[in-house]
Amino acid sequence: MKHFGTVLNVSKMRQKRSSPNVSLENGGKNMNKIRVAICGYGNLGRGVEKEILKSEDMEFIAIFTRRNPESLQTSSNVPVVSVAEMEKWIDKVDVMIMCGGSATDLPVQVVEAAKYFNTVDSFDTHAKIPEFYNAVNEVALKSNKTSVISGGWDPGMFSIMRTYADAILSNGKTYTFWGKGVSQGHSDAIRRVPGVKNAVQYTIPIDEAMESVRNGENPELSTAEKHLRECFVVAEDGADLAEIEETIKTMPNYFSDYHTEVHFISEEELKANHSKMPHGGFVIHSGKTGENNNQIIEYSLKLDSNPEFTSSVLIALARATYRLNCSGQYGAKTVLDIPPAMLSRKSGEELRKELL
Amino acid sequence: MKHFGTVLNVSKMRQKRSSPNVSLENGGKNMNKIRVAICGYGNLGRGVEKEILKSEDMEFIAIFTRRNPESLQTSSNVPVVSVAEMEKWIDKVDVMIMCGGSATDLPVQVVEAAKYFNTVDSFDTHAKIPEFYNAVNEVALKSNKTSVISGGWDPGMFSIMRTYADAILSNGKTYTFWGKGVSQGHSDAIRRVPGVKNAVQYTIPIDEAMESVRNGENPELSTAEKHLRECFVVAEDGADLAEIEETIKTMPNYFSDYHTEVHFISEEELKANHSKMPHGGFVIHSGKTGENNNQIIEYSLKLDSNPEFTSSVLIALARATYRLNCSGQYGAKTVLDIPPAMLSRKSGEELRKELL
Repeated sequence: MKHFGTVLNVSKMRQKRSSPNVSLENGGKNMNKIRVAICGYGNLGRGVEKEILKSEDMEFIAIFTRRNPESLQTSSNVPVVSVAEMEKWIDKVDVMIMCGGSATDLPVQVVEAAKYFNTVDSFDTHAKIPEFYNAVNEVALKSNKTSVISGGWDPGMFSIMRTYADAILSNGKTYTFWGKGVSQGHSDAIRRVPGVKNAVQYTIPIDEAMESVRNGENPELSTAEKHLRECFVVAEDGADLAEIEETIKTMPNYFSDYHTEVHFISEEELKANHSKMPHGGFVIHSGKTGENNNQIIEYSLKLDSNPEFTSSVLIALARATYRLNCSGQYGAKTVLDIPPAMLSRKSGEELRKELL
Repeated sequence: MKHFGTVLNVSKMRQKRSSPNVSLENGGKNMNKIRVAICGYGNLGRGVEKEILKSEDMEFIAIFTRRNPESLQTSSNVPVVSVAEMEKWIDKVDVMIMCGGSATDLPVQVVEAAKYFNTVDSFDTHAKIPEFYNAVNEVALKSNKTSVISGGWDPGMFSIMRTYADAILSNGKTYTFWGKGVSQGHSDAIRRVPGVKNAVQYTIPIDEAMESVRNGENPELSTAEKHLRECFVVAEDGADLAEIEETIKTMPNYFSDYHTEVHFISEEELKANHSKMPHGGFVIHSGKTGENNNQIIEYSLKLDSNPEFTSSVLIALARATYRLNCSGQYGAKTVLDIPPAMLSRKSGEELRKELL
């Protein structure tokens, strides 16, 4: 097990396991591995599953689901268990990776899971984070567990970048741009338009807006002034294309405030060219020091697969969650509370030598 | 004073002050401020001085120098004190910001200062970091002080980016590009060439190399394949320009491995267009997830003033250093050991609401 300066203590970490025999069952082979499980098996759960299997410091224990466990086709051969049975696994899982949706699953499931397990999730409803934090914190403090909430990339890596930039150049301004990437919510909204058979919507940051920020001009920009929306639409046979386009472009909240482009394509074209889930974005911070010197900090992600990248972040955070708990830091935490080294498989010594 | 989840405790932080009366002398006005001082008054020290004066949560206490204190012209009116007197200020300074050079100053000065103070420095000789860490750690552990070493942007912010990226996409590859920026060492080397009156050298990342990395091609690149060197040279009257150019371009270690461009300009032109100290660079990490999906993480800095940006990072780290010490984390630490929230003036609650 890795050693982090003086913060973590190896012998303490070992003592923490409530059931050391679980490791011995494997002939001691997995003794140092972090035992992780997944709760929720959609796009994200499947991404997490693939990445756990590549993580040599982790042992994959189980998948928990609300569905009938027998109905799940999984890529690994770990047990698939009903969420109702969760409590029975209390001694067998170090970290539960929560892969449900933010709208209705996570607010209920994380609060429940934190009674028994350390958890990590990607809750991304920004406006409700304080409320979610308080609910999870209360439970996790009582159970002496650690719950890292709102991991992933936004919130997550982007939050880290906004925080560092604001701390270093506190007189500056931070801009977040999203895309180019598929917005599931906007794609769904188009699919509900009469005459539409299928659709994919890309959110695209506007180059001129990004350039203005990068030049230190500190513009005032609404979300609509930062992004345009490009829609690829498959229409039903005989549908009125002009009417569909008009309905999309004038749709309140989703499109009416934006520059929106609509392209009609065939179902085959949609499947061939628009079935991946790319995403990404930019956090750009512009501040001044001394006598009017511009200082620009920029972070960007260009992701072929949004759910797979989110999975990779969650796995690094699962590692950190376990270590936080081993060092006695209970309750709800966010990515902002975690030292970068805690996410890494490398020791402090290796990090200082190789990456510092 | 800001509150960080459950990690820091306000009343503890207050108790830590060995001489609470220092604050009372100011009528309690500065009671919650972090008392900082500077050791070393060159480009960096002057940058730090300007930024401390803008930091509302800090009180600027003194400047320590090896020179005759009376010979220093400072921008602030804090006492200028000989480094020989440092020990007498033990109860008056919370964090000493070490602004000497990495080659000879910091290895001696930080080890000495850590006997009495929490310190933060920007030691940047990458190969000697482990040795420097061990020396500082030993002293700081004995004195119950906290020393954050190798802050700034590389090492510093770039190290943080390399660590996060490597932790998230551990099968990937990280590339660091520097520039466009002035290299003091290379400029000095040119100035030593016979017939050269003055010179400035810019290190410039090569676009094609960066594009290859951004495309996920994972190329093998030497430092020389990633950067070119552009030199602006003022020659002495009557000097042989062709010979100067040849001497520069064939200089081992500094230029012979690189594509090097030499431009001869007038002293006036050099002063007018090349007297700032811009710098910056890129950390690009390229990894794969799932079935061959490329995931690209990129961080970049575009800095009008290298020493002023480094100063801003050191000040945010001084805040973190004080907080680490208040929470009992003694010894040498690096940026990789510090949660992002600890650098910020905002409370955990504000961060979760505004920046997460």
